[in-house]
Amino acid sequence: MGSADTMDAVIFKAPFQMATEKRPIPKIIEPKDAIIRVTVAGICGSDLHFYRGHQKMEPGVICGHEFVGHVQELGPEVKNFKIGQKIVCTFTITCMECWFCLHGYTNRCVRGKSFGSLGFDGGQAEYVRVPFADGTLQPAPTTVDDSLLIMMCDIFPTGYYGADRAIQYFESQSRELESINANTPMFQVQELKDCVFVCLGCGPVGLCSILTCLTKKVGKVFAVDAVDDRLAEAERWGAIPLKLGRDDIKAKILEATEGRGADAVIELVGNAAALKSAFELVRPAGCISSIGFHQGEVPFTAFEAYAKNLNINMGRAPARRVFNNALEVLVANSDKVREFVTHKLPVTEAAKGYEIFEKQQARKVVLVF
Amino acid sequence: MGSADTMDAVIFKAPFQMATEKRPIPKIIEPKDAIIRVTVAGICGSDLHFYRGHQKMEPGVICGHEFVGHVQELGPEVKNFKIGQKIVCTFTITCMECWFCLHGYTNRCVRGKSFGSLGFDGGQAEYVRVPFADGTLQPAPTTVDDSLLIMMCDIFPTGYYGADRAIQYFESQSRELESINANTPMFQVQELKDCVFVCLGCGPVGLCSILTCLTKKVGKVFAVDAVDDRLAEAERWGAIPLKLGRDDIKAKILEATEGRGADAVIELVGNAAALKSAFELVRPAGCISSIGFHQGEVPFTAFEAYAKNLNINMGRAPARRVFNNALEVLVANSDKVREFVTHKLPVTEAAKGYEIFEKQQARKVVLVF
Repeated sequence: MGSADTMDAVIFKAPFQMATEKRPIPKIIEPKDAIIRVTVAGICGSDLHFYRGHQKMEPGVICGHEFVGHVQELGPEVKNFKIGQKIVCTFTITCMECWFCLHGYTNRCVRGKSFGSLGFDGGQAEYVRVPFADGTLQPAPTTVDDSLLIMMCDIFPTGYYGADRAIQYFESQSRELESINANTPMFQVQELKDCVFVCLGCGPVGLCSILTCLTKKVGKVFAVDAVDDRLAEAERWGAIPLKLGRDDIKAKILEATEGRGADAVIELVGNAAALKSAFELVRPAGCISSIGFHQGEVPFTAFEAYAKNLNINMGRAPARRVFNNALEVLVANSDKVREFVTHKLPVTEAAKGYEIFEKQQARKVVLVF
Repeated sequence: MGSADTMDAVIFKAPFQMATEKRPIPKIIEPKDAIIRVTVAGICGSDLHFYRGHQKMEPGVICGHEFVGHVQELGPEVKNFKIGQKIVCTFTITCMECWFCLHGYTNRCVRGKSFGSLGFDGGQAEYVRVPFADGTLQPAPTTVDDSLLIMMCDIFPTGYYGADRAIQYFESQSRELESINANTPMFQVQELKDCVFVCLGCGPVGLCSILTCLTKKVGKVFAVDAVDDRLAEAERWGAIPLKLGRDDIKAKILEATEGRGADAVIELVGNAAALKSAFELVRPAGCISSIGFHQGEVPFTAFEAYAKNLNINMGRAPARRVFNNALEVLVANSDKVREFVTHKLPVTEAAKGYEIFEKQQARKVVLVF
């Protein structure tokens, strides 16, 4: 714990160098701010982008965009929260005032900075300032404990969204075909239970996607990764594990689909090789839901995409929009995800937390205060 | 007219060289074949790909994938048609036996060759052999005359599909938001009447897309092209014309959307510049419906697509799937599209027909027999 005016905070120093240092406790700046006293903060897979030096980061920023805690202080214009109330914070500012927020595109908030990014301190700290608190914070459901709640900041809504985009694509196809059939019976409707989905990447977010697919009764869900522990977990839940470097992924998917390819691929890795693989695995007129954070080129041509009747959806998740629906799936699977957090470390050991997470020695690390 | 055994047919000789020559009248080869006596055949925008030498084509092929006519002869396994019956033929083989056809992806028929392509004679001829006639042919609605029917082979279903993909994207968004609001009122639902769509390319297919958007009550439809006649037609129907080279397209779209960009862009041109333009004009989390035939690269990066929350659908239309829905829109707009065909030429003047169409001196050319 810090003194009355300072707190412990996790600071980015340089790639592969994190430190827990004393920082001033943040204060209300804008009338819609809240100050949150953090109880649990997560280290997220996307934190590894700057940790590994793949994404630019300013030395000195307080990191972290996953945190759960209690309201410590409120600006005069915050209406939905009370001092002491337990909250979950979504990973980006969600003003609920701009056109995008108001119309449900909360991932496109014009003020939507991510906590713990360039010039905007995050939540791996004892206290954090939350702008536009009425939109950015969610009341914590009382029935859900902290190790589950921390997943609602980013990874569960994001994993849910990745699966849901693909599921909605098929629901939309089904509705169209059913309406055609109502006039002239003509087509067989492929229901979700007849679909084959592939999750490329089974880190924490991928596992959340897999759980969503299974809960929504997608027929077959293939889990593709290189890490045994992840694949074992996916298999326990009902997915079919395929190990990179061991299995011939494409051959297995073709075998499961009479040679067509997967109906949908959820791509959660965020590099060109994964997106290329998604393109190769998806069937003609199938769907790629890509939520991996891409920084490179599109690894297929427009000719190839035309010739495959590709449908693809890319980009980060609208956490507030999907929050309640994602929470429902999380709660329905509490028993499965309760052991999701493998490591709880005091904030003073944050550097170690980043290290073991980066080396894939931990599935999910949280810092406690 | 040819002799008893021969017929007039439009032959590709070389780029910019078409000829009407005598060819043997085709015969039933497979038991599911039909022979059609053609009454009207269209020259389609996509015929210009090989005419201009942009797409490989075999000298000697009978061209054309748009034709209307009467059943002349039937193989023993054709069940749905009778000798003499008037038909419309969709532009590709649609077997209605493969997995894709049966599940409504008739654009992905595993036998789905396009009439008048490499090794497969088309319908710019007095007679044409139609494989898998029960799936590939449609009974001609008796209430619709030939100059409208010819649009149902390809351009109207294709234009309809381009618009419909974008419309369905928004319908899907609306359904999701309404279901969220039903539990916790939170978001404003953007209805089609509040949407701004852009049609990039207003040739015949683009005009069909525009008509579909207007019929489905899309709020504002911008028509973008370089040809005055096309823009004038779109404007008469209710679209807002923007002329390439004259108007600052991007500025106009931003102005109409409070700086956000278009909710959807329907891209009908099929080159990298058009797809790039679509990407620049669409708003974050908007939708690109691309039905232009692309042969090049994707002109944006995966980073840009991620950062824009892009949704894009590409590829050719499932003509049989959308046939009845598209026909409904066509019939509702008969008065507007009746003058769509600007030139009717005897089949012997096919070379001239290609020439004036290529020079954009005709909106739509049909050959009559």
